[in-house]
Amino acid sequence: MDNLLLDDTLRGFLREDLEHGDITTEAIFSEETGSALFVAREPLVAAGLETVAARVFRLLDDQLRFFGEAAQDGARVEPGETMLIVSGPVRSILRAERVALNLVQRLCGIATLTRQYADAVQGCKAVIADTRKTTPGLRLLEKYAVRCGGGRNHRFSLSDGVLIKDNHIAACGSIIEAVRRARAAVPHTMAIEVEADTLEQVEECLACAVPVIMLDNMDVPTLRQAVQLIAGRALAEASGGVNLRTVRAIAETGVDIISVGALTHSAPACDIGLDWASG
Amino acid sequence: MDNLLLDDTLRGFLREDLEHGDITTEAIFSEETGSALFVAREPLVAAGLETVAARVFRLLDDQLRFFGEAAQDGARVEPGETMLIVSGPVRSILRAERVALNLVQRLCGIATLTRQYADAVQGCKAVIADTRKTTPGLRLLEKYAVRCGGGRNHRFSLSDGVLIKDNHIAACGSIIEAVRRARAAVPHTMAIEVEADTLEQVEECLACAVPVIMLDNMDVPTLRQAVQLIAGRALAEASGGVNLRTVRAIAETGVDIISVGALTHSAPACDIGLDWASG
Amino acid sequence: MDNLLLDDTLRGFLREDLEHGDITTEAIFSEETGSALFVAREPLVAAGLETVAARVFRLLDDQLRFFGEAAQDGARVEPGETMLIVSGPVRSILRAERVALNLVQRLCGIATLTRQYADAVQGCKAVIADTRKTTPGLRLLEKYAVRCGGGRNHRFSLSDGVLIKDNHIAACGSIIEAVRRARAAVPHTMAIEVEADTLEQVEECLACAVPVIMLDNMDVPTLRQAVQLIAGRALAEASGGVNLRTVRAIAETGVDIISVGALTHSAPACDIGLDWASG
Amino acid sequence: MDNLLLDDTLRGFLREDLEHGDITTEAIFSEETGSALFVAREPLVAAGLETVAARVFRLLDDQLRFFGEAAQDGARVEPGETMLIVSGPVRSILRAERVALNLVQRLCGIATLTRQYADAVQGCKAVIADTRKTTPGLRLLEKYAVRCGGGRNHRFSLSDGVLIKDNHIAACGSIIEAVRRARAAVPHTMAIEVEADTLEQVEECLACAVPVIMLDNMDVPTLRQAVQLIAGRALAEASGGVNLRTVRAIAETGVDIISVGALTHSAPACDIGLDWASG
Amino acid sequence: MDNLLLDDTLRGFLREDLEHGDITTEAIFSEETGSALFVAREPLVAAGLETVAARVFRLLDDQLRFFGEAAQDGARVEPGETMLIVSGPVRSILRAERVALNLVQRLCGIATLTRQYADAVQGCKAVIADTRKTTPGLRLLEKYAVRCGGGRNHRFSLSDGVLIKDNHIAACGSIIEAVRRARAAVPHTMAIEVEADTLEQVEECLACAVPVIMLDNMDVPTLRQAVQLIAGRALAEASGGVNLRTVRAIAETGVDIISVGALTHSAPACDIGLDWASG
Amino acid sequence: MDNLLLDDTLRGFLREDLEHGDITTEAIFSEETGSALFVAREPLVAAGLETVAARVFRLLDDQLRFFGEAAQDGARVEPGETMLIVSGPVRSILRAERVALNLVQRLCGIATLTRQYADAVQGCKAVIADTRKTTPGLRLLEKYAVRCGGGRNHRFSLSDGVLIKDNHIAACGSIIEAVRRARAAVPHTMAIEVEADTLEQVEECLACAVPVIMLDNMDVPTLRQAVQLIAGRALAEASGGVNLRTVRAIAETGVDIISVGALTHSAPACDIGLDWASG
Repeated sequence: MDNLLLDDTLRGFLREDLEHGDITTEAIFSEETGSALFVAREPLVAAGLETVAARVFRLLDDQLRFFGEAAQDGARVEPGETMLIVSGPVRSILRAERVALNLVQRLCGIATLTRQYADAVQGCKAVIADTRKTTPGLRLLEKYAVRCGGGRNHRFSLSDGVLIKDNHIAACGSIIEAVRRARAAVPHTMAIEVEADTLEQVEECLACAVPVIMLDNMDVPTLRQAVQLIAGRALAEASGGVNLRTVRAIAETGVDIISVGALTHSAPACDIGLDWASG
Repeated sequence: MDNLLLDDTLRGFLREDLEHGDITTEAIFSEETGSALFVAREPLVAAGLETVAARVFRLLDDQLRFFGEAAQDGARVEPGETMLIVSGPVRSILRAERVALNLVQRLCGIATLTRQYADAVQGCKAVIADTRKTTPGLRLLEKYAVRCGGGRNHRFSLSDGVLIKDNHIAACGSIIEAVRRARAAVPHTMAIEVEADTLEQVEECLACAVPVIMLDNMDVPTLRQAVQLIAGRALAEASGGVNLRTVRAIAETGVDIISVGALTHSAPACDIGLDWASG
Repeated sequence: MDNLLLDDTLRGFLREDLEHGDITTEAIFSEETGSALFVAREPLVAAGLETVAARVFRLLDDQLRFFGEAAQDGARVEPGETMLIVSGPVRSILRAERVALNLVQRLCGIATLTRQYADAVQGCKAVIADTRKTTPGLRLLEKYAVRCGGGRNHRFSLSDGVLIKDNHIAACGSIIEAVRRARAAVPHTMAIEVEADTLEQVEECLACAVPVIMLDNMDVPTLRQAVQLIAGRALAEASGGVNLRTVRAIAETGVDIISVGALTHSAPACDIGLDWASG
Repeated sequence: MDNLLLDDTLRGFLREDLEHGDITTEAIFSEETGSALFVAREPLVAAGLETVAARVFRLLDDQLRFFGEAAQDGARVEPGETMLIVSGPVRSILRAERVALNLVQRLCGIATLTRQYADAVQGCKAVIADTRKTTPGLRLLEKYAVRCGGGRNHRFSLSDGVLIKDNHIAACGSIIEAVRRARAAVPHTMAIEVEADTLEQVEECLACAVPVIMLDNMDVPTLRQAVQLIAGRALAEASGGVNLRTVRAIAETGVDIISVGALTHSAPACDIGLDWASG
Repeated sequence: MDNLLLDDTLRGFLREDLEHGDITTEAIFSEETGSALFVAREPLVAAGLETVAARVFRLLDDQLRFFGEAAQDGARVEPGETMLIVSGPVRSILRAERVALNLVQRLCGIATLTRQYADAVQGCKAVIADTRKTTPGLRLLEKYAVRCGGGRNHRFSLSDGVLIKDNHIAACGSIIEAVRRARAAVPHTMAIEVEADTLEQVEECLACAVPVIMLDNMDVPTLRQAVQLIAGRALAEASGGVNLRTVRAIAETGVDIISVGALTHSAPACDIGLDWASG
Repeated sequence: MDNLLLDDTLRGFLREDLEHGDITTEAIFSEETGSALFVAREPLVAAGLETVAARVFRLLDDQLRFFGEAAQDGARVEPGETMLIVSGPVRSILRAERVALNLVQRLCGIATLTRQYADAVQGCKAVIADTRKTTPGLRLLEKYAVRCGGGRNHRFSLSDGVLIKDNHIAACGSIIEAVRRARAAVPHTMAIEVEADTLEQVEECLACAVPVIMLDNMDVPTLRQAVQLIAGRALAEASGGVNLRTVRAIAETGVDIISVGALTHSAPACDIGLDWASG
C-alpha cells in the first residue's frame, strides 16, 4: 500500500475519533511519556502492525517512536506475544490508540480467517480469493489483510476487472453477445470473467474463449463436471456457498480459485490488548 | 443522522468502488431500466434501508426511484421479505448496488445483534450500550444501527464524553485528583465517568461524587456488591467480558448500563440478497 | 489543540490570502533572509503565539525558525514587548504574516477580554464561560483563547452537550417530559442542562434532578432567589445581559457559571505590530 | 458572491457546529414544523440575510422555505424589524440557526460600521475601503459586507493587487527599483500601489508614475500636502490611524481612498434575535 | 463517465478560473439574459459538448438552459456548425465560458486526431489505442475523447492493467520470472502484457503464454515478423514511433493494437468560437 | 510557485495514475534501488525539473534523492542532455515517473514555444504574454512555464484583472459607461483593460483614460494606426491571429504586449525520455 493513498484515510479515521480533541486526556496529562504494547490475546495472523498501526501513531504525532520489531505481516502470533511497542508522549498514544487498535483487530481478524481457509485447501491447486464485499472505506486495507493471510485479491473495484453477471447476460440475450460487447469496449489488458450458473453456460463461455469462468453456486459434483469440461482452457473460479466446512471439498474439484465473501464481511475482530509498560 | 454529514461519506464509498467507472456495465448496458429488490435471506432487524441504502442510490443517480415502503429502521424482518425496491436505469443500480448492500448487511448485522442483547436483558433495568470499538470511518452509521436494534449510544468520540481510565488515574496518583482535574477543565455539560476495577475504587468514586462509574471486568458477584455499594448514587456501567451467555446474569446484578464492544466489532453481516424484478 | 485538527484549517487560511501567490513579493525578493517581531502595541493577554502563529509560518515554509521564547498562552504582555520572533526567507515571512497577525490579534483580543471578565469576578465562586457565538470556522481557536484568558468552555458543538431550551420545552409540553426524552436518548456521559426563565421552571428542573440549570435573562434579585432555591443541588449558570458593568453583581448572587457571548462575538482585535529586525 | 465559491465554506461552518449531530434536538423533536424570525434588536445595516443566512438553512435542509422578503443587503433596519422568516421542520431550523445567526450578526456588524464611516465622509470625494485584516476564512463574506455598508474593496489577496511596502522598498534600495521590478513581473492588468511614509517618497512615486500611492500614517497636515503634491497624477490612499473621530478630517484633505482595518477586525457583532412564530 | 466522478473535477476547474469571482462581469452585468453558441471554426470530431461543457455550465448555475441538440460525441462537425447553445443569465455564461471552451477545444482536438488515426488504418484489423501520456488531472476526460474519436482505451492507471516493461524484466532476470511473479500477485481478472524489444523476447513471451505482447519500437519488417511469430497466440500491440505517416504501414503488418501517445499529449486544440445570439 | 499551493495538485495527479497502487511494480520489485535520468531527446527550454518533477517524486517517497543539478528553469537544453537524476527505491521511481514526465514534457513544451515567440520579437518593445486558454487544472503550472520561456503572464483568473470585452460593452451601451461601472466597483489596485475592435473604439478608450487597450484581431496596418493613435497614453496589447509567422510584423507595429493563446493551448509536448542508469 502506498502511503500517499493511505494517509488521508488514516487521518480521516483519527479525526472521526478525535473530533475537537480528547477532553479527558487533555485535562489530565501534560508532558508525561510512556510506552504501550499491543499484545495478542489469542492466536492470530498479524496484519498491519508496522504498515497501519504504527503509521496511525506517526500521523498523530511524529515524535512517537517504535521499539523492537513489529510483528511481520503474515506471521503467526501466539497469545501473549507483543506485536508492537509505541513510546512517547502519553497524550499522543492515548489519542491514537483506539483508532490503531480498531484497525489492527479488524485486519488481523481478516488475515487470520484467510489463513484458515488457505490452510484448509493446502495441497490443492486452488487459491483463496476475496470479493468486493468489503467494509466501505476500508477496501484497500482489507484486501491487504487478505494477502497477509495468504489469500489472493479479486478485482479491487468495478474499474479494474470485468465480471459479466446474470444481469449483463440477460440484457444481451447471450453470453456470446455480452462477451463481444465487453471485448469491444474494455482495455485489452483486462481478462474477461463470466459468471456461469449451469454447465451449458460453461460451454457457452468456452465457445467464446472466455479466460476466466466463475462457477456460481454450483454443488460439488457439478463443480467437478465443470472443471472437467473446462479442461484447463480457462481459469475456474468457485463462488457461493463457501465456508470452512465446505472449502476443502470444493478445492478438491480442481478449481483454480475459490472466492469467499466471508473473508472480509464476516471475519470477527481479533482480541488484541493494549498494555502499558511499567517504568 | 444529518444528510449533511452523511453524504460526503457515502460519496466516498461510491468512489472507492467505482474508481474510474464500472467498465463491465458501461460496455454492456445503455438505457435499459429495471428494478432491484433487497430481500432478507435470514431473520434480522432492519437498519439503514431508507436512511442509507436509498441515499446511496440517489447520490449516484437522482433519477432512481423507490417503490413501496422500505423496511423501517428497527423492524424485525422475516426471511424472504423485501426490504427495499429501487427502480430506474440498470446502469445506475448496478454501479451502486454493492456499496448499498455492503452497508445494509453490516448495519442490519449490528441492529440484529444489538436486538439479541436487548432482548436478553428484557425486564431488567439495564440498557445495552455500544463502545468506540467501531469500524474506522463508520462510527456514525454503526452507532445509528445500535439505536435501531434497541441499544443506547455511549460517547461518540473522545470529545463528547469524559472517561477516566486506569492510565489517567495512575498519572494523577488517585481517582480524586483525576476527577478534580477533569472537573476543572471540561465543559460543565459533561458528566464525569470513571473506570473502577475494584470495590475500593468504587468507594473512591463515590467519595468524590462521580456520577457514572464503569465497573470494569468484574465478575458477577463483585458487580452485585458494587451495585449495592453505589446504591443509586451514581450510574453503574458494567463493561468487559459481556457476551450473549453472560449478559442476563450481569443485568440481574442491577447495573444501569451494559456496554458491549462486540455489537460493532464482531457483528456478522446479515445475509441480504439483491433480486431483479421480472418484467 | 491537536495539530492534526489545526493544520488543515490553517492551510486553508493561507490559501485564502495567497490565492495563486504573493505577486508583489515574488517580483521583488529572491533569497533574502530576515527576522520579523510581533510586538504588542497595547497591554494584552497572549494567546496563540507559539501554538498558532508559529505554526502558520511553519506550514508555509518549514525552513522558518523562531528565536527566543514566544509569549506564553495566558501571559499578560505589556506594550512594547516582543511576543514572537520569526526568522528566515523574507518571501516566506511576508507571505504568511497577515494570516498569522490576523489570527493572533483576534485570539489575544478574546483572551484579553476574557481576562477582564475573570478578573471582575475574582473572589467569587463563579467561572466565566464562553458560548457557541463564535466566528464560523474558528470555534476551536476561539475557545482555546477563552481558556488562555482564564475562562471555561461551554459545549463545543451541538453534539457534545445537551441544552434544553424554551423551544424544546414547548415542544414537549413540560420540562419533565423534555428531560425524560433527553435522558432516554443521549449518551449517559452527558449532563443535562435546562434553560429556566422563571423560578417556577427552576423548581421544575430541581424536581427532575437536572444537574445544570441555565438561569436565562434573570435580573440580579431573581438570580439570587434562584441560587437559594437550587441550594447546591444543581450547577447554576447565569446567561444573558452580562457585560463588564454587570458581571460582578451577577457573580455575587452565588451562581457557579456566567456565560458571556461577547467573549467571542464582540472582542476587539488587539493591536499587535510586526517590526523587522535591523541587520 | 458565487454560490459555487460560497457553499463549501458554509457547509464547513455547519459541520463545525453539528459535529455528529444535534443531540438535544434529535432527542426531543420529530416531525414538528415551525417558523423562526430574525429580528433586529438595534438599528443596523443589513448584510447577508438572503445571500448567506437563507443559504445556510437551505444547505442544511432544502425543504426549508422563506416567507416575505428578506432585508435587502445595504438596507437600514430599525430595532424590532423582521429581517428573515424561515419555515419548515423545527429540527432543521434549530440545527442551522446558530451558524446563520453568528454569520449574520457579524456581517451586519461590518456593514453597519462601514456605513458609519461612509456617512462620516459624505460630501467628500473619499471612498472608504477595507483591508486584508479580515477574519481568516471569512474574507469573501466580510468584503461583501463592506460593500453592503457602502464601502469599497481593496485587494482580496496577495494575488490580485500589488502593494509595495517599506520592506519591499528597503530590499530594492529605492522605490524606483522596486517599481521597475514589479512592472517587469506582474500582469499588466495590475496597477502598482506604493506605500509612502514621507513627502519625499511621494515625490519618488510620482517620478516613476505610480498610479496609486498609499499615504501611510501621515497626520492631517502632511496628508493635505501630499494631496497637493500629487495633484491628481495618482490616486491618494490614506491609511493608518483612521477612526470615526478622525475620518472626516482625513477625508477633507482631498484623498481619494481611506482604508480602515477596523471595518473588519473590530466591528462588534450586531444584536439580532431569533424569535419563534406563535401558531 | 459518471457524474459522481466528474463533478468534483469540473468544480475545481471553475474555481481555478473564478478564484474569488469574475470582477469585470459582476461590475457590469446584473440580471441580463442571453444565449451563447459554441461554433466550430474548422472541421472536427465532437467530444464533450453535452457531457462536459453543458455540465460545466449547469454546475455554475443550474438555471442555465440548452437549446436544440448538442453535437453528439463522435459526430463529424463542419466549420460554421453550432455545437451547443446555452441560454440564461449572461453573468453565469461569462463566468463559465472559458472553462467550458478550454475543455471542449481540447477534447475535440483529441477526438479529431484519434479519428484521423482510426481512418488511416481503416480496413486493417488494428485498433488505435491511447496511453497513459495524458494531461495530469484530465485522464478520464481525455480517454473519453479518444473513444469519441473511434479509438480504444489502454489501461487507465497503474492499478487496472499489468504492463511488464524492460525495468521489470531486468529486475527479475527474465521475462518468464517476471510473468511468474505478476501472475502470482495480481488479480486473475488481469491479462498480463509484456513489452518485447526483440523477436527473441517475443518468443520468450509466447513460451510463457503471455496474452498480450507490446512490440516496442520495432521497425515495420520486424513487426511483420513478430506478428507471424505470434500467429494469433497473443494480442500484438505496436508501440513507439507511430505517427500519421507511419501508422498505415504499421497496421498492415497485422498487429491488433497500435498505441499512440500523441493522441493525448500532442493533439492541438480545435478552433471553436463562442458567438452571442442576436436578440 | 508556493509549495503550499502546488502540493495538493501534484498529489491529486499521483492519485489519478496510482488509483489503488501500481500492481505490476508491486508484484515484481521489493527493495531494489536505482537511478533514473530525464534526458532531452530534442532541443528545448527547461521548465519544472527541480520545481515540479523533483517535487512529484518527493511527494511520493521522501527517501528519493536527486544527484547533480537539475536543468534550470529557462535554460536551453540540447538533445542528449540529462535534465534530472532521481535515485532511490525503484518501486517509488516507477510509480511516479509517468506523472513527472507528463508534467515536464508539457511544461517544457510551453517554455520552448514561448521562447520561440520571444526570440521572434527580439529587439522590439513587445513582450509575449499568455492568456486564460490554459489546460483546466494546470493554470498555475502552465503560466509558470510561460515565464520560464521568457514570456509574461496576463491575468491568472477572472478575479485578478479587469478585461472589458464586446459583451460587456454591448450591455452598457458604450465603452465609457462600462469603464465607469468597472471603476466604481473593482479594487483600485486593478488597471482597467478594454477590448477595442476598431480605431473608433480605441479613441473612445483614450477618451476615458483606459490604461490598457486590447487591440483585438486587427490587421498589421490597423495595429500600426492604433499604436500611433494611442501614442503612449495607454499600453497597447495585440491579440488574435498571432502565430510564429505573423508575430514579428505585429511586434514591429510598436505594440507593448502580444498575447498568444497558442502558448498554452497548442504547445506540443517536448520529447523527453527516461533512461535508467547502469549499475
